[in-house]
Amino acid sequence: VAAGHVTQDRLAQQLHFILEVDKLKNIVRRSLVTSGERLENDAEHSWHLALMAAVLAEHANDDIDVNRVIRMLLVHDIVEIDAGDAFIYDTGAQSAKEQLEREAADRIFALLPSDQAQEFRALWDEFEERETSEARYAAAIDRLQPLLLNHATGGATWSKYSITSDSVLGMNEKIDRGSSALWAHAQQVINDDVEKGYLEPGPVG
Amino acid sequence: VAAGHVTQDRLAQQLHFILEVDKLKNIVRRSLVTSGERLENDAEHSWHLALMAAVLAEHANDDIDVNRVIRMLLVHDIVEIDAGDAFIYDTGAQSAKEQLEREAADRIFALLPSDQAQEFRALWDEFEERETSEARYAAAIDRLQPLLLNHATGGATWSKYSITSDSVLGMNEKIDRGSSALWAHAQQVINDDVEKGYLEPGPVG
Repeated sequence: VAAGHVTQDRLAQQLHFILEVDKLKNIVRRSLVTSGERLENDAEHSWHLALMAAVLAEHANDDIDVNRVIRMLLVHDIVEIDAGDAFIYDTGAQSAKEQLEREAADRIFALLPSDQAQEFRALWDEFEERETSEARYAAAIDRLQPLLLNHATGGATWSKYSITSDSVLGMNEKIDRGSSALWAHAQQVINDDVEKGYLEPGPVG
Repeated sequence: VAAGHVTQDRLAQQLHFILEVDKLKNIVRRSLVTSGERLENDAEHSWHLALMAAVLAEHANDDIDVNRVIRMLLVHDIVEIDAGDAFIYDTGAQSAKEQLEREAADRIFALLPSDQAQEFRALWDEFEERETSEARYAAAIDRLQPLLLNHATGGATWSKYSITSDSVLGMNEKIDRGSSALWAHAQQVINDDVEKGYLEPGPVG
């Protein structure tokens, strides 16, 4: 009976977490989906990144445990349920978000049974710290994907927010830390965006 | 130079696949997201299942490789880009969908380099065949999630399509093959739906 109760309690906690994270489907990002019809949300973005990580694993700079990368990407944005999506080109929002995101992580992962709360929080911390090969590769995928969506939608986000190529290059050069091959490709995409008129060339010094 | 060309070709194929599968974000399902604001799409559904599979792994009937389950769930609905979402309670749509889905799998996975096309197609085939412990657990998660969303939204899908409890029990009893613990919980959810008036009791014989 005692063991049965423990299982029931664990399952109840797990299901609470599972319903809570459903809210990620309502957190809207700045990129359009490739059809151009609407903005992407964090849940579908997380799915796309997890699949990209599996497909592109051979391009990581280091030997990586791609399964850990996939798990990291499945939870990396969950904190935005409380903290919202902070646009990477909005530097004011970026500085405020760290504390908000830590508080969100404290609240949301704690819904799980304590062993799992620790396990998933550790994945989120690892992603945020960018110190392991897995975290750097995961972050590279997280940066590459919006570039691909912007390219596919004629630079919709760039023009809406008057972002120039120097910002895009500066903001995304960390892709190189996770994958030099993907950074080489990202630079080609950015140059092509400028040539096509999707992206204004950066301020001339 | 030759090796460089091979890498470029592989990356081009991989990126083609990655942009193609973005269309999964536009395939609408029958469940509402928990906020009740709109129907869920296949991409965010796939994210939710992958994370659920990780969180609930201890409830699988057999020892499973949860990482393979997660990969299976990331690709299991990709065929619906061509074949559309076939509602499980619409038995006519179900019988037509098999051929359409195989053709979709033939087309979409073939966008990848051939080694990866085989690898991802094998995951999809494994899911469809329900013969491994991993596939049965993955299918259990895929069945459980809409029950949870329906419960959270007052039985919205049940009432919209006049579905009764006997159909819901019959359609979902295969959860038991992947996880008896989750099937026990699912039955409680279904009974509670009936008690709350979210779901009509099945036809009395």
